Amino acid sequence: MQARELLQQHIAKTASLTEEQFEYLFSFFTPMSLKKGQTIISEGDKVDCEYFVVSGCLKAFFINDEIKMYILQFAMPTWWTSDYAALYNGTKATIHIDCITDAEILCLSNSDREKLCSALHPVEHFFRWRTNRGYIASQKRLLSLMNNDAKKRYEELLAQYPQLYNLVPKHLIAAYLGVSRETLSRLHTGQH
Amino acid sequence: MQARELLQQHIAKTASLTEEQFEYLFSFFTPMSLKKGQTIISEGDKVDCEYFVVSGCLKAFFINDEIKMYILQFAMPTWWTSDYAALYNGTKATIHIDCITDAEILCLSNSDREKLCSALHPVEHFFRWRTNRGYIASQKRLLSLMNNDAKKRYEELLAQYPQLYNLVPKHLIAAYLGVSRETLSRLHTGQH
Repeated sequence: MQARELLQQHIAKTASLTEEQFEYLFSFFTPMSLKKGQTIISEGDKVDCEYFVVSGCLKAFFINDEIKMYILQFAMPTWWTSDYAALYNGTKATIHIDCITDAEILCLSNSDREKLCSALHPVEHFFRWRTNRGYIASQKRLLSLMNNDAKKRYEELLAQYPQLYNLVPKHLIAAYLGVSRETLSRLHTGQH
Repeated sequence: MQARELLQQHIAKTASLTEEQFEYLFSFFTPMSLKKGQTIISEGDKVDCEYFVVSGCLKAFFINDEIKMYILQFAMPTWWTSDYAALYNGTKATIHIDCITDAEILCLSNSDREKLCSALHPVEHFFRWRTNRGYIASQKRLLSLMNNDAKKRYEELLAQYPQLYNLVPKHLIAAYLGVSRETLSRLHTGQH
């Protein structure tokens, strides 16, 4: 599906925009083609944009003081990603975002989003619900991390991203769950 | 400070409402006085409201499969709290919220918030930024949990809630950090 059509369908699920309003909104987005392994945000960067995924898969991750990688989010088509703390507060990035596969994304700057929200009430409505859903996903991830049952966390992950096990290298799935690759294999075998 | 004035000042930091618009908004809020230990949300409840804290302190928490308590959030004056996953999705509560101290809160129902956001663009703007900030706090909490350095997590907690160490029983601070009370004492002694 074309980027424009995918974004239009995605927004229409939450807010009603006229064709003219969507045209205006879409004019603020910049398409980008990314290669597997390409980085869009590194720790310490100034962050000006958020990204809507059209195709491919990205990961948002964090390297802790013991050089261990944790994955915060896998960003699939119709997901949004950025370092939102840095984007909203104007602070430096504390996470990294890069591409697991080749990807097509649409980029929207912070100032353009605010301009659009101020100009069009339905766009403000859309972005409020977009963040509400992000907030829920983040709370769910918190609860999942606090719960020690790795098997349950693995099942939740597969429910959220059914196609993940075939798409994404196993060590990245282990890094999302915070378990070793051996534990992941055991969970997967027990599962099927 | 009176509940009305506190909410008005809180909203004015993000959105410009006329006196008449604020009057209309405020008419949808219901004040509640709560006693120390009182519960407002229990796991399994239907959740219809979110809560703005006027005075006192509440905690949002979760009991995992090993009957261990984790604290997701301490809610202080001008903070909002609810089980937002349950509130937004219409699902049953997966967390508990109760009062650490006596508290005064203002209650707003889900349907009234949507009515207000639809009627007044500045109110939709306010709630978008309220959730943006909640999302950032949630992401920060995630990163903090993923980082193994308990000392750093403790320092971040004190920076976020400077008055917390005197206000809140020590076992609750330990439950927020996910450490034992002994570790907390060691962190506190090393700190001062």
